[in-house]
Amino acid sequence: MMTTSDRLEQQIRFILEIDKLKTVLRRSYLLNGSRYENSAEHSWHLAVMALVLAEHANEPVDLCRVLKMLLVHDIVEIDAGDTYCYDEVANQDKAERERRAAERLFGLLPPDQRDELRALWEEFEARQTPEAKFAAALDRLMPLMHNFFTGGRSWQEHGVTLEQVLERNSPTAEGSATLWAFAKRLIDQAVEQGLLPSRSASQT
Amino acid sequence: MMTTSDRLEQQIRFILEIDKLKTVLRRSYLLNGSRYENSAEHSWHLAVMALVLAEHANEPVDLCRVLKMLLVHDIVEIDAGDTYCYDEVANQDKAERERRAAERLFGLLPPDQRDELRALWEEFEARQTPEAKFAAALDRLMPLMHNFFTGGRSWQEHGVTLEQVLERNSPTAEGSATLWAFAKRLIDQAVEQGLLPSRSASQT
Repeated sequence: MMTTSDRLEQQIRFILEIDKLKTVLRRSYLLNGSRYENSAEHSWHLAVMALVLAEHANEPVDLCRVLKMLLVHDIVEIDAGDTYCYDEVANQDKAERERRAAERLFGLLPPDQRDELRALWEEFEARQTPEAKFAAALDRLMPLMHNFFTGGRSWQEHGVTLEQVLERNSPTAEGSATLWAFAKRLIDQAVEQGLLPSRSASQT
Repeated sequence: MMTTSDRLEQQIRFILEIDKLKTVLRRSYLLNGSRYENSAEHSWHLAVMALVLAEHANEPVDLCRVLKMLLVHDIVEIDAGDTYCYDEVANQDKAERERRAAERLFGLLPPDQRDELRALWEEFEARQTPEAKFAAALDRLMPLMHNFFTGGRSWQEHGVTLEQVLERNSPTAEGSATLWAFAKRLIDQAVEQGLLPSRSASQT
């Protein structure tokens, strides 16, 4: 039988392990342009965003569930790395890498919590529930804002086109029509300001 | 009258502003020792900790409230800076600096949300409710773990003594007797391993 202290020991081991998410770098720059953002601080930012923007979800959401989902949604990156959303090759085996990561990382926890956190992560990935759709909308909108307000720097460094940004961001509409309208205004402005070339333009 | 888009604009301004919390450095090293931790990723870590350790709170807690409190508890540091808990001089005007910071930062939000987030921050600071006591316990325990598992590096760099660590960590008991017992074991081990001198020993 598992004693309280065995259980606490497992919980602490998980908490120590996830410190590593602070060293997983994304391709978004901080708004002051000083460095890439890491996945731990990104997760915090999305959670606060959820707290502030929940009223704009298309359907009423259980905010607590959205917060939990956003807090754990990137933990698999500790093993699987941050897969840049515009990297087609890396995205081919992303699902399998992340599945193995979820197995190991959530597996550090006592079984009930392993199952709970894994289910939250799977719900986020599946984007079927109102909470997951809204969480995904925020996970699209924040990088768009980071890119737009740093002069499109990361888009330019990776040769990202308007078509790719539109495709990547379109799920925002499923979570929040209001935030999708806002996202589209940013994308339009990015094009007007020459921050984001369209594929056809870049081919001429 | 405030239109939806005025309201969204205020919310977005706040969300962009708090990106700065990612550049506020604490005195704790990451567990891999590579750099100081920042206050945004620290807030994320505490929120996940709350999710995993809530069962150890002395009194039943509303987890959602604990999460919200931890997500916003350090936002004032954007203006007020991270005040090192063992810096007696800096702690003299900490309350006033943070009050002004709360005024400006939460003041970016629409009035209802300004009041809600400010109340969460004040509840955290006052440490009176079960939720605030538990949140404070986590905010003590994580830096203790960071210090212990990096060989007491930050304690040694700042000449911190056993007496200071005991005083700083004692509020953990109010939030969770289980976590306080765990914290005391870490402190005992730190002393045994010579990571943490007692004041009397350092004076001889």
